[in-house]
Amino acid sequence: MVAIEEPLEIQLGSWASGRFSHRTISITMRTPGDDFELAAGFLFTEGIIAKASDVRDIRHCGPGAGPNETRNVVRVDLADGVEVDYRRLERHIYTASSCGVCGKTSIEAVHLAVKPTLEKGPRVPANVLHSLPSALGASQEVFASTGGIHATALFDSEGRLLESREDVGRHNALDKIIGNQFIAGATPLRDRIILVSGRAGFELVQKSLAASCSILAAIGAPSSLAIDLAREFGMTLVGFLRDEQMNVYSGEERIL
Amino acid sequence: MVAIEEPLEIQLGSWASGRFSHRTISITMRTPGDDFELAAGFLFTEGIIAKASDVRDIRHCGPGAGPNETRNVVRVDLADGVEVDYRRLERHIYTASSCGVCGKTSIEAVHLAVKPTLEKGPRVPANVLHSLPSALGASQEVFASTGGIHATALFDSEGRLLESREDVGRHNALDKIIGNQFIAGATPLRDRIILVSGRAGFELVQKSLAASCSILAAIGAPSSLAIDLAREFGMTLVGFLRDEQMNVYSGEERIL
Repeated sequence: MVAIEEPLEIQLGSWASGRFSHRTISITMRTPGDDFELAAGFLFTEGIIAKASDVRDIRHCGPGAGPNETRNVVRVDLADGVEVDYRRLERHIYTASSCGVCGKTSIEAVHLAVKPTLEKGPRVPANVLHSLPSALGASQEVFASTGGIHATALFDSEGRLLESREDVGRHNALDKIIGNQFIAGATPLRDRIILVSGRAGFELVQKSLAASCSILAAIGAPSSLAIDLAREFGMTLVGFLRDEQMNVYSGEERIL
Repeated sequence: MVAIEEPLEIQLGSWASGRFSHRTISITMRTPGDDFELAAGFLFTEGIIAKASDVRDIRHCGPGAGPNETRNVVRVDLADGVEVDYRRLERHIYTASSCGVCGKTSIEAVHLAVKPTLEKGPRVPANVLHSLPSALGASQEVFASTGGIHATALFDSEGRLLESREDVGRHNALDKIIGNQFIAGATPLRDRIILVSGRAGFELVQKSLAASCSILAAIGAPSSLAIDLAREFGMTLVGFLRDEQMNVYSGEERIL
């Protein structure tokens, strides 16, 4: 048994200069399933859409859209009046910032699509955090049979698992969780906790911040830039959350 | 101790329409170090350069290029007469294939920058393969102190470790290895074995194929598309190579 990896093309349709057109804005290698959530979460964490009503329609399309085939193109059509600056968009997604990536200013230079404003957020007893990995593990159905897939789960502040998703790409698993909440009108995720099964890199912190989630925990290690970014915005970042231990890299005031 | 993650901007300089110009073609989140190898390996596995003499110069540049700062921009200038079709390049790197990503044809649709032609390649005793993970582990200096970084190593067909690299991005670790060999004029990697510390996804098989390496082994799991691609081109793909066991997904005739 192996985890499925297939490309997903995300197309964005919107009005621009008086006519409706669409274009491909991303191709990601993902595990099929929850593609609409993935597309919505991606667009939301990139700052292209802000609320569920910005989206008119999400659907599969393209030549593989038959009932028995893997459908690898998702079209997101924006609602009337939702403007997209495609040039800005291309710059963000394809090349990030094209200047000033050097040296000490790398955090500012790497594009933060959404400027996060974290509120105080929940305060969570340490033993609640320690209970999360086993809940995540119990939800990892594909991992149990393949050993080759990342997982992300969303918890409330009392440690109840709300949603979990698996994907060969850890950023996709997080986009699916955030997209699920976005579509349900449940973003921002102010009182939630996100747990990822692997490492916490910069991109996962950025996406969690974009969703205004103030606590991100990882079973694995964080990177230097993930810690820097979490500290910059006052997010609680926990790593190596396993075996009744954890490292708290930022925002320790939220852990009781 | 945490693994360093910083953005690297790769700029490509070349002659086009009678004048020399450069542009940003990729920004990747990587662990600083061996940036020239990373840039060269990326360009080689994307099919933009084919041999060391295609490159005139590789250097750090930009405002952070001082001696005591992290240098996050690398410029690769191509030699006179090496042509780059930037429109084709952008399509490849930024959007992959923009059509036909659907359904059964996904392998063909996802862009293979370099059409690999694997030769017979080495035949390797299973016990040589079983010896590789401990050699890789012994070379993982940053992992030993951070627990948060991928590693890739290159071996000859008798199991001798030739090079190893660590990076927060597993594709970067592989690009560094391949770039190291490319710069040294040692590509294609016909008689070599590549071992990666984590999972083997589509992208790692694609890059290994681009370097004409016929044996790719992973400590972790492969994905479905990685297996499909390996089988398509007759590459030997080994997963879960640990604890004196392995799964062989493709090309078992090379394992004795």
